[in-house]
Amino acid sequence: MNDKTVTVEVGLGDRAYDILIGPGLIARAGETLSARLPGTRVAIVTDENVAAHHLETLRDGLERGGVAVAAVVTLPAGEKTKSFSHLQDVVDAILAAKLERRDAVVALGGGVIGDLAGFASGIVRRGMDFVQVPTSLLAQVDSSVGGKTGINSARGKNLIGVFHQPKLVLADSGVLDTLPIREFRAGYAELAKYGLIDRPHFFAWLEKNWQDVFAGGDARIEAIAEACRAKADVVARDEFETGDRALLNLGHTFGHALEAATAYDSERLVHGEGVAIGMALAHRFSARLNLASPDDAARVETHLRAVGLPWRLADIPGDLPGAEKLFDYITQDKKVSRGALTFILTRGIGQSFIAKDVPASEVLAFLKEALAG
Amino acid sequence: MNDKTVTVEVGLGDRAYDILIGPGLIARAGETLSARLPGTRVAIVTDENVAAHHLETLRDGLERGGVAVAAVVTLPAGEKTKSFSHLQDVVDAILAAKLERRDAVVALGGGVIGDLAGFASGIVRRGMDFVQVPTSLLAQVDSSVGGKTGINSARGKNLIGVFHQPKLVLADSGVLDTLPIREFRAGYAELAKYGLIDRPHFFAWLEKNWQDVFAGGDARIEAIAEACRAKADVVARDEFETGDRALLNLGHTFGHALEAATAYDSERLVHGEGVAIGMALAHRFSARLNLASPDDAARVETHLRAVGLPWRLADIPGDLPGAEKLFDYITQDKKVSRGALTFILTRGIGQSFIAKDVPASEVLAFLKEALAG
Repeated sequence: MNDKTVTVEVGLGDRAYDILIGPGLIARAGETLSARLPGTRVAIVTDENVAAHHLETLRDGLERGGVAVAAVVTLPAGEKTKSFSHLQDVVDAILAAKLERRDAVVALGGGVIGDLAGFASGIVRRGMDFVQVPTSLLAQVDSSVGGKTGINSARGKNLIGVFHQPKLVLADSGVLDTLPIREFRAGYAELAKYGLIDRPHFFAWLEKNWQDVFAGGDARIEAIAEACRAKADVVARDEFETGDRALLNLGHTFGHALEAATAYDSERLVHGEGVAIGMALAHRFSARLNLASPDDAARVETHLRAVGLPWRLADIPGDLPGAEKLFDYITQDKKVSRGALTFILTRGIGQSFIAKDVPASEVLAFLKEALAG
Repeated sequence: MNDKTVTVEVGLGDRAYDILIGPGLIARAGETLSARLPGTRVAIVTDENVAAHHLETLRDGLERGGVAVAAVVTLPAGEKTKSFSHLQDVVDAILAAKLERRDAVVALGGGVIGDLAGFASGIVRRGMDFVQVPTSLLAQVDSSVGGKTGINSARGKNLIGVFHQPKLVLADSGVLDTLPIREFRAGYAELAKYGLIDRPHFFAWLEKNWQDVFAGGDARIEAIAEACRAKADVVARDEFETGDRALLNLGHTFGHALEAATAYDSERLVHGEGVAIGMALAHRFSARLNLASPDDAARVETHLRAVGLPWRLADIPGDLPGAEKLFDYITQDKKVSRGALTFILTRGIGQSFIAKDVPASEVLAFLKEALAG
């Protein structure tokens, strides 16, 4: 096994923390935590699927390194777990284990577990230590950076939560070998996003090296590290999302609308796939508005197709609603102010920007074209 | 009506905010909010008792000043309201009213409502604006400064919450005229606490002027302002309670134990009364340990007695448990490390300090003496 570990520092002043990326980090978690958070006791929060693969490795790794595991909470897998009722279960388990503010909640899993366990750690005793052990590519490049935590409300996703930065992230690149290929690809869409936002060289590198990233090894570690660096840069500029951080939503406005239009049916579309199509649409829409060259839109589409991701509406199995209905899903997500919307658009590969006055009529016309194929 | 308004700034950098103290602030809330938080819409959270006295004044005052009231949540009065289930109700009402991050939750009530509404405002959309309108003396001098919010768990009080600073506090000194005298006195105990922590001149001033504070008018406003300044100083030094902020717990270790020993029966003892007795005991205990002069302990006891507050164990109606049991209640609240406890003790009036190595045996011996009268 390759023992290379790359460290990315998220520079947030007194909330700064490190992301360690490399193989075997879960098995070595105990020595790492003992060195960085001496004396900590932990509660592990995970889901049933992830527990089957990695819980014993983590627990043994922690205990071997002298870290006491005071509680393990294993929840059902899936988005529905991000609820008030599961939050209350996790909070209660942490309190029952008598963990203090300088003890840690360890999230072992994907975005759902990270969001839920992070939120719980942010509210027990008004904030205790939090360690992320993301086990999906999506969580390693996205949810593990930035401190957003939360649960869903019947009124929308992620409407309830806090900003709570972890003390440490262990992104074990080895665990990604056990991911289904479709889930790995979905995470890859968010990884490519960072190239498209403001790192054109990274996107070009991915165009050349994506097969190595999929295969594992150093290229995968480097790609995850670069995505984490990119996100950390944006978050350091705008921790509480009052400005630039909105760039991270590239592809997400169209993507969320498509997730809603397919009733969050993961057989048809998972989040990362929605983002892939959303990024392709954002580039094509930017070209239609004469902001970017159609060649750049074509480059994005070609790359997504090459890695096996969906990139156009026709790639979604089953029927989609009409343009007006898709537009309604878009405006559910955001305010329409005097007939104009805010979108993340682009002037080319790696030149995304926040466009605040996109005419609703242009969005609608573009959706009609896109549906017509 | 006297229109004097005193402003105390809580200096927390980009989370700094003002506390306005004076009569008639609720009726003028609309113009104040319009000027300081332009364009804000609000959800009011209150309890049934407070609503009967002040809700219409606040609602009219807001709407007259051009602030839209998008929702009103009226909860049962009492500590039991600080629960997960009421938190969820408040969060849902805020989301149903489609409030955004720059809209505000307005807490109209005492500490329970402030803690619950503040917590809700801290987690909806990962933090929205929050305005406190404290209607008890205790809430005006204590809960309204410092950003602690939260709810209770079956495992203890205030174990779940966040630090979330308000944007503005309107401490309407006029509403205190409608408080039952016992509740006013209980708040006065926390007010006097700030003199005992580190403001000996303020304590001396209260000894001379307490009757004017009880009567209302400028002395009351000045006393509230000075207590808020004192607390703001401590909080600015230690926002997240990693050090000096523990000084605010003067009187609270004994006080909490007494509240628990009387089963939180408010007929026998309310929080501020527990703090009054706790402060007297902390001074007497410090004298017993030869840290402070017995004359200072006597001064504290004399003043509490003068204003009508309980100051010794014998002032609590009904039977108390024995010294061992009281000691157990104390250690439920805090860790006993190698036979020693952390207490807030004092070297004299206004000279409190954090004592980290108080022998358990001394605490127990002192409790036996105090119970013997």
